Amino acid sequence: MKGFVFHGPGQSAWEEVPDPAVQEPTDAVVRVKDVTICGTDLHILKGDVPEVEPGMVLGHEAVGEIVEIGSDVRTVRPGDEVLVSCITACGRCRFCRQGTYGQCLGGGGWILGHRIHGTQAEYVRVPYADLSVHRLPGGLSGQDAVLFADIYPTAYEVGVLNGGVRPGDTVAVVGAGPIGLAAIRTAQLYTPERIIAVDLADSRLDAAKRLGADVVVSAREDPAQLVADLTDGLGADVVIEAVGVPESFELCTRMVRPGGHVANVGVHGKPATLHLEDLWIKNVTMTTGLVDTSSTPTLLRMAAAGRLPTASMVTHTFPLDSMEEAYDVFGRASETGALKVVLGEPRHDALAVPAAS
Amino acid sequence: MKGFVFHGPGQSAWEEVPDPAVQEPTDAVVRVKDVTICGTDLHILKGDVPEVEPGMVLGHEAVGEIVEIGSDVRTVRPGDEVLVSCITACGRCRFCRQGTYGQCLGGGGWILGHRIHGTQAEYVRVPYADLSVHRLPGGLSGQDAVLFADIYPTAYEVGVLNGGVRPGDTVAVVGAGPIGLAAIRTAQLYTPERIIAVDLADSRLDAAKRLGADVVVSAREDPAQLVADLTDGLGADVVIEAVGVPESFELCTRMVRPGGHVANVGVHGKPATLHLEDLWIKNVTMTTGLVDTSSTPTLLRMAAAGRLPTASMVTHTFPLDSMEEAYDVFGRASETGALKVVLGEPRHDALAVPAAS
Repeated sequence: MKGFVFHGPGQSAWEEVPDPAVQEPTDAVVRVKDVTICGTDLHILKGDVPEVEPGMVLGHEAVGEIVEIGSDVRTVRPGDEVLVSCITACGRCRFCRQGTYGQCLGGGGWILGHRIHGTQAEYVRVPYADLSVHRLPGGLSGQDAVLFADIYPTAYEVGVLNGGVRPGDTVAVVGAGPIGLAAIRTAQLYTPERIIAVDLADSRLDAAKRLGADVVVSAREDPAQLVADLTDGLGADVVIEAVGVPESFELCTRMVRPGGHVANVGVHGKPATLHLEDLWIKNVTMTTGLVDTSSTPTLLRMAAAGRLPTASMVTHTFPLDSMEEAYDVFGRASETGALKVVLGEPRHDALAVPAAS
Repeated sequence: MKGFVFHGPGQSAWEEVPDPAVQEPTDAVVRVKDVTICGTDLHILKGDVPEVEPGMVLGHEAVGEIVEIGSDVRTVRPGDEVLVSCITACGRCRFCRQGTYGQCLGGGGWILGHRIHGTQAEYVRVPYADLSVHRLPGGLSGQDAVLFADIYPTAYEVGVLNGGVRPGDTVAVVGAGPIGLAAIRTAQLYTPERIIAVDLADSRLDAAKRLGADVVVSAREDPAQLVADLTDGLGADVVIEAVGVPESFELCTRMVRPGGHVANVGVHGKPATLHLEDLWIKNVTMTTGLVDTSSTPTLLRMAAAGRLPTASMVTHTFPLDSMEEAYDVFGRASETGALKVVLGEPRHDALAVPAAS
């Protein structure tokens, strides 16, 4: 089969790789139908995630069809259309028993496209399939569903839930890429008073407005002052970091009110400066986190019911074998305006036929 | 009257100052009977708390007798023996209504010995007396009770409660000064599996053992490795920072398990390095905080019932007018072995009479 292989920093190719097969009784093999590229994959290509070894097939988000299962798999069978979650869960360790699958001690966690071959390929082997794939609910296309492999649960769990968003809150989201946009949308589930989006790119601020941000502000201006002006000088109740650079995290800690929350979602490659000389007295709670995907079944159900938008986040689609072109478009997002790129079947709205009149 | 006056970094004196008087209808004036010195006062003397202006009487912890009240004070009257809390609370602002008195927007919060004259004097004016002093329960001496003005509620609220200590947890306390010792004692209220205390000074590690630490380790060794060894390589469920220097905070973030909590209690004068490149994936919750003293009535009741030790934390006592000597002994704690120094009435156990046999 073909797969997208990391060959060390700056080197990668869509090339022939061995077909995967069931290795353990708990494995499934999935034929990939829709797959996407994550900002984390760009970090890997840059060499920021050194534990990824050359030769690895990347990718940790997909929708596809089960083609083979091991003898212990009980919840899916060949022919089922499933979401392949970015998190693999053994279901038996201390952390899985608490639903914190992201920290799985049984060889799971984030392993696809990281420790084992991933989803940017024609087929993928998924360990612990019973807990690591989700059957698609009816009415949800693969191109919509693939956003629930990582970005929606990540934004919701690591941003909105860790941040403790509550009705009436002022929520600031720093970074309006796919994760930030999904945070804006899922923060609305808790009916905050206002959502303020911060980004450098006008196209992303426009997208933030479309997804429901009440106020948008360029990171080149003074977002902390704007938030202070809107909150009697106090700051935001919840600030969600969705960029992954030290400056962005530090901005978040200046935007939060006394007693507020900073929820870090960004993937960081460098340390930040924590201004404890200001923060020690402020009763601030700061959280970090890899997603657990414990919310994925709920979010998929809400999406199938039309409660979470998906099409508005996908700006570019490609056939699966155009992976290199898709990486190029996604990697130059500031020029191309790319949010989420999806590879696979033709995009559903490209198929839309005008209603008969 | 006499008071201990800050005259700028490195300069201070026990000297004649004007008598305080009721200025607002919600004020009370308290004759100070027992008072203590906080590590924060040493920070002020060093110039680390620049908002403290020269001429300020220091101190934010005391027990004394109400001698005058304003016309709106309802809950105490002259003659009552009270604890003067380190936090003053208006009771009416947004934060006071939530019990987060430390962030009071009505002119309260930590103001004594910071924004207005403090308790290291013969008399002190306490604003918003109804919510800012606590009548002493029976059976508790002033020298015991004064530990509940700051250190016990701070260690409990900002360390144990913010850290979310639960039964069965491994709790590490970095810094075994008075705050760390009170954290060790109040962490036990939640029946953790083990408490590990870290400090540089053997005398403090001995005190930690006496207060109930199960394991003690010198900060000169490798506390993070020790904690890993005790926890299957995972780290502590809760780590409490009770020092207030960057190295200590950074050690705490290396000692915590995935999904665990770092509760910062220390007063910091410098920024720390936050290793987000390691922490982003670990689901760590970090909290900071000034005490609210919302727990003070409960802790006082528990102390009166003998459920919280006090005498074992007080190493030195002085008459009130020996303030300069007391500061010297407390400031050289590594030589003198001082934990908490109390000035005022003679120490209760010095008065103990052998039981008749």
